[in-house]
Amino acid sequence: MTEDRRRSFWAWGWADRLPDDDERRELKARIEGMLGFPERPLLDYPTLEDVSMPTPAIDPPFAFCTTDSRERALHTYGKGYRDLVRGFHGDYTNAPDAVANVETEDDIEDLLAWAADNGVAVVPFGGGTSVVGGVECDGDGYAGVVSLDLREMDAVLEVDDTSRAARIQAGATGPEIQEGLADHGLQLRHYPQSYEFSTFGGWVATRAGGHFATRYTHIDDFVESVRAVTPSGTLETRRLPASGAGPDPNRFLLGSEGAFGVITEGWARVQPRPPYRSRATVRFDDYWDAVAATREIAQARLQPANCRLLNAEEAMLNELAFDGSHLLLLGFESTDATGVPRESLSRALAIAESHGGTWDDATHEDRTADEGSDREGEEGEWRSSFMEAPYMFNALVSMGVLVDTFETAVTWESFPDLHRALEANVGAAMNEQCGAGFLSCRFTHVYEDGPAPYYTLLAPADVGNELEQWRAIKRAASDTLDEHGATITHHHAVGRVHREHYHREAPDGYLDALRSMKRTLDPEDIMNPGALL
Amino acid sequence: MTEDRRRSFWAWGWADRLPDDDERRELKARIEGMLGFPERPLLDYPTLEDVSMPTPAIDPPFAFCTTDSRERALHTYGKGYRDLVRGFHGDYTNAPDAVANVETEDDIEDLLAWAADNGVAVVPFGGGTSVVGGVECDGDGYAGVVSLDLREMDAVLEVDDTSRAARIQAGATGPEIQEGLADHGLQLRHYPQSYEFSTFGGWVATRAGGHFATRYTHIDDFVESVRAVTPSGTLETRRLPASGAGPDPNRFLLGSEGAFGVITEGWARVQPRPPYRSRATVRFDDYWDAVAATREIAQARLQPANCRLLNAEEAMLNELAFDGSHLLLLGFESTDATGVPRESLSRALAIAESHGGTWDDATHEDRTADEGSDREGEEGEWRSSFMEAPYMFNALVSMGVLVDTFETAVTWESFPDLHRALEANVGAAMNEQCGAGFLSCRFTHVYEDGPAPYYTLLAPADVGNELEQWRAIKRAASDTLDEHGATITHHHAVGRVHREHYHREAPDGYLDALRSMKRTLDPEDIMNPGALL
Repeated sequence: MTEDRRRSFWAWGWADRLPDDDERRELKARIEGMLGFPERPLLDYPTLEDVSMPTPAIDPPFAFCTTDSRERALHTYGKGYRDLVRGFHGDYTNAPDAVANVETEDDIEDLLAWAADNGVAVVPFGGGTSVVGGVECDGDGYAGVVSLDLREMDAVLEVDDTSRAARIQAGATGPEIQEGLADHGLQLRHYPQSYEFSTFGGWVATRAGGHFATRYTHIDDFVESVRAVTPSGTLETRRLPASGAGPDPNRFLLGSEGAFGVITEGWARVQPRPPYRSRATVRFDDYWDAVAATREIAQARLQPANCRLLNAEEAMLNELAFDGSHLLLLGFESTDATGVPRESLSRALAIAESHGGTWDDATHEDRTADEGSDREGEEGEWRSSFMEAPYMFNALVSMGVLVDTFETAVTWESFPDLHRALEANVGAAMNEQCGAGFLSCRFTHVYEDGPAPYYTLLAPADVGNELEQWRAIKRAASDTLDEHGATITHHHAVGRVHREHYHREAPDGYLDALRSMKRTLDPEDIMNPGALL
Repeated sequence: MTEDRRRSFWAWGWADRLPDDDERRELKARIEGMLGFPERPLLDYPTLEDVSMPTPAIDPPFAFCTTDSRERALHTYGKGYRDLVRGFHGDYTNAPDAVANVETEDDIEDLLAWAADNGVAVVPFGGGTSVVGGVECDGDGYAGVVSLDLREMDAVLEVDDTSRAARIQAGATGPEIQEGLADHGLQLRHYPQSYEFSTFGGWVATRAGGHFATRYTHIDDFVESVRAVTPSGTLETRRLPASGAGPDPNRFLLGSEGAFGVITEGWARVQPRPPYRSRATVRFDDYWDAVAATREIAQARLQPANCRLLNAEEAMLNELAFDGSHLLLLGFESTDATGVPRESLSRALAIAESHGGTWDDATHEDRTADEGSDREGEEGEWRSSFMEAPYMFNALVSMGVLVDTFETAVTWESFPDLHRALEANVGAAMNEQCGAGFLSCRFTHVYEDGPAPYYTLLAPADVGNELEQWRAIKRAASDTLDEHGATITHHHAVGRVHREHYHREAPDGYLDALRSMKRTLDPEDIMNPGALL
């Protein structure tokens, strides 16, 4: 990993890409104009000098460990709203005592052995992009906290071109994997919004969701095998296309959130870029017609790569429509057969039409001759706004706008009641806390039995009081999800933020069983304490 | 469940469908002629009077329990070769002491509480179709053994037509589920070879594989939620289309093989029958050309419903080709878009042609107007031979033919070496044990990173000595799978037969973790002891 370019110590992404004052003023005008929020302040971005951080309680005896303040600040939080707010205000009370930049599994084993002997908590750190408190640790009850960063373990180690699989180290980011596979004409094609910074190990640990609406999108389905170092030893699953031998061991590490051990590498299924694509954007006047069309398309098993239903608020927020239309972004792709995406789109459009949908043009692409990167212009405006969004969040924090997203999955049967309840309850919480608020919804993924709705909320915050306001609004959202039988998270993971509601959602006996697994693999309870379990 | 029609106490299936003497003679002639085996005897089928069985050691104090001999015999074994041989010879030493025909979860809770208090082992029993010793128990170290039969819990309890999901009791068989969904125009479309007798709960417990080659075939992917009664309480996962909240709790029950508790019901994703289908059978002269074509089709992501590569021996055994051709049975289907299967088949055939494949005709079907059962003629000759095969196995046992199947999954890269080693090692073991032998291979499922090869073996056995011969041959097969990094089972499960090799395959730390989970949910170790763990 090149560290010439610096990541912001408190905010999402590269320091040099933080929105400048012109951009911030434009955004401020939009928020005040479009959303009708009261005038927002323009506060200065924090500097490292503003940061208050306790003296390290421990100093691990390893050359790969550092207690440097900037490193500690970079490893204190993830990138959720509450992280950005704390970072913005220079609150680094929970900074880890040290950061371990491990280079090998031996380093990890040494560190875990030392930590177990000394009652030190260890927090695995990939891209640090968690939005659910996955990488912070208050260290209560521990002699100290070490953030174990895997950035030096970032290689694509091996490629099996015949079986189309690659052995990837846990610390490799999206672009590093892309680069490591390029010579083989292969890609992983797992595109979470955090793609640029998040890592293979982090994706596995959090069951990351990719950008595509169906099929080849969840990291769960790409994982062929995983290797992890636990305090009780190293655990490696066998490379297998499939197996029916007992409960799937990969599925036990997928979603383990560092609570059992440190994922160090794995084999992932890879693929060439599908060159044939067909796309269209459908407009609906009525949201429930749009939902009905989306459900019918999902259940027709046409397997769209994109099937992103944006409600009117979401379409406006993304500057795609301002007339109250709801938009369904449809896309189909194929590795091999030119006619399949065309035929599938045509069927999907016929379904959309039967529910009142209209569209201008369908686009059909043949990219067989195109050597360009998949990341250039792939989704047009949607895609760039998708990748740009986290930078905008940084700016919003700096102008006293409370901004958060939450996501779930629920059956089609339960979605309408859930959606109305969320609009009511989250809306009421925003009004009560902030006097105003905005809530929008898109489907990030669709399944035959239900959608994965993703909500974005914006409200004018009292600077200095943001976290109290956020907590009340977040609780309204999470309680509503739970009451309607929806999951607390579809792809953001559990971490510390969702733990209480995760414990409501997971069966008691299952949580007991997971805790007993943890005791076996991590007897001193040093692995990411407070996350998940 | 109607019990007017009787199941054979020792053999696969209905007693009235055991091959009669004419059929047996025809089969005997085929085996001797086609395979060149020495003349086989025609032995009489056993009767219940031939059975020797110990007196029950316990008599559970529940009206739903019986110690009737026929019931005990029916619950002693599964339906693998070693089960049929022991049944044929009247060896019921390991008969359970009692059979519990539970009707409710309360019955199950009562039984488990009593069993835990009295040191009695409990073996969950669905269709009793295990071929890996999943439902037998020698009871060593226990006061007795109860077989817990779920046949009375066989209803489709609820259907959510909007979300296309159904709540199904664990004891419902394939046809019972089909019937329960018929009024809704929906099907589960999970077709293991055991479909007629095996049950929803059994499928979940063993991670059953269905009949289709890709996509909607594994029970793992159909399960929306599961409910299980464990000795420590009832555990129910939430109905969710997807979730990223921690390690997937459904995946922990999928493959649990009754070792943690009794699966009582679950919600499964269901679907209408896909009416559009396109099919063709491709011939290849060279097996490795056929393998290369199959791999390319799998990796083209055309998602065939059928992609069954039969090597020459397998094609001959199924009476589909006698000229040394290898056959690739291709099928594509679609719920909605007529053109997709047509286009996909056309691409698959182009790939096959580029590897030397030839075919006569492609068939395109539109079954939108066809109200007939999906089970009638769906796969033509292949399908009927597939469903008939277990009855033939009964007859083979009665003429001293050792017959078994084993299956696996492995990467494309490793398949050629594995296949050659299996032909060599299993061939050598059959020759050494039986003086002759026949081994054939088909792919039951294909993945982008590898096939699931399924082997059938036949050898002339010494009647009375069959199990020793079988053990040596099975060990040669299992050791070879392990040495080549293949899985010990793709969909037959672990049970007792595969336990030793499963323990080689699963990471040590993972087995330790599973054992600690089991101690939490089943502290007295009464659940299906000896299976899986």
